Amino acid sequence: MKVKVVSKILEANDRIADENRKRFKDAGVYVMNLMGAPGAGKTTLLERTIQALKPHLKIGVIEGDIVGTDDAERIGALNVPVVQINTGGACHLDANMISEVLSELPIRELDMLIIENVGNLVCPAEFKVGEDIKMMVLSVAEGHDKPLKYPLMFQESSALVLNKIDLLPYMNTDINKVRRDSLALNPKLQIFEISCTTGTGIDQWAQWLSALRS
Amino acid sequence: MKVKVVSKILEANDRIADENRKRFKDAGVYVMNLMGAPGAGKTTLLERTIQALKPHLKIGVIEGDIVGTDDAERIGALNVPVVQINTGGACHLDANMISEVLSELPIRELDMLIIENVGNLVCPAEFKVGEDIKMMVLSVAEGHDKPLKYPLMFQESSALVLNKIDLLPYMNTDINKVRRDSLALNPKLQIFEISCTTGTGIDQWAQWLSALRS
Repeated sequence: MKVKVVSKILEANDRIADENRKRFKDAGVYVMNLMGAPGAGKTTLLERTIQALKPHLKIGVIEGDIVGTDDAERIGALNVPVVQINTGGACHLDANMISEVLSELPIRELDMLIIENVGNLVCPAEFKVGEDIKMMVLSVAEGHDKPLKYPLMFQESSALVLNKIDLLPYMNTDINKVRRDSLALNPKLQIFEISCTTGTGIDQWAQWLSALRS
Repeated sequence: MKVKVVSKILEANDRIADENRKRFKDAGVYVMNLMGAPGAGKTTLLERTIQALKPHLKIGVIEGDIVGTDDAERIGALNVPVVQINTGGACHLDANMISEVLSELPIRELDMLIIENVGNLVCPAEFKVGEDIKMMVLSVAEGHDKPLKYPLMFQESSALVLNKIDLLPYMNTDINKVRRDSLALNPKLQIFEISCTTGTGIDQWAQWLSALRS
């Protein structure tokens, strides 16, 4: 019974996601759904990405959080259009939430829309929002067992940013195991090693993303 | 409509949680619900806690994960009774899942049962499982903005373990802000600074936990 309800919710979500996708295509905007656990470094990566791509691309952002506007304020400080969604209790964004805020963004003027999901390694991977690609951020401080314990997000993502690699010398995380297990789940996954603190890997990541758009 | 369904699910959950609580009380076992984001260090803290308390208390463990038995194998290696729940897609444990596995554990022989929830900073805080206390682990690598962005778990928990404090010299996390914001949400919250790598703070934490039981 519970599964039935969930499956109906997912079907309804997919219909709205398809409508969003049409609106994005009509507007000519490329859409990325950015996912990861709390504290993986999604917002900081987004700041660095915007700084790298802003000279070439017009970027807009939707921020998803349970409560508060901290992340939208950080992104707004970079002078890009941003909308904050507060989900209340919900641990993920869904297609309807995105649909409801789209009129607040000048999507026809944008080249790329980045949707930062709620910090959660589970449910965001289950809900399409109309995106062109999903990608995920994993902090090396989260440990090397995450692909096998939370496989769906690794399977659904086109790219994995291994973030905070400047911390590797101070911990036992085996990133070769992360690479191996992630690629076993998803052989097409593009993996980037990044430190938002030192800037390592940002250029390569931004170039890859920019090429996707064109 | 969606809210209505969710509220019915939560009511049904609370009834089963009350039944679990009666079973725990009859058995004379103290129950802790251990929560936190993926990679906060819940399982490693559990290993250290068991090592510290094992001479004094009989401990049993229920491990909650989406898939796999990694965590149960780590705990089983310490020779304590352990059961693994695989939730499938569900991002949290609920009271019914706990009820269904209780017969697999010798709860009348235990002093303390520790239930390690699915790695998630959101939904586990919404679902009672019949526990005496909830507690949470936050890795300092997750950053200092987490209490304000994920308030419910901080409000519901009796204790907060600030884990991986050995990494503090290598990052910008302001743990005084974490303390301040956490205590504003929950003035009774007990806060412990711990490194499972160096052992800092484990004794104090284990003593506090042991005193709760008696």
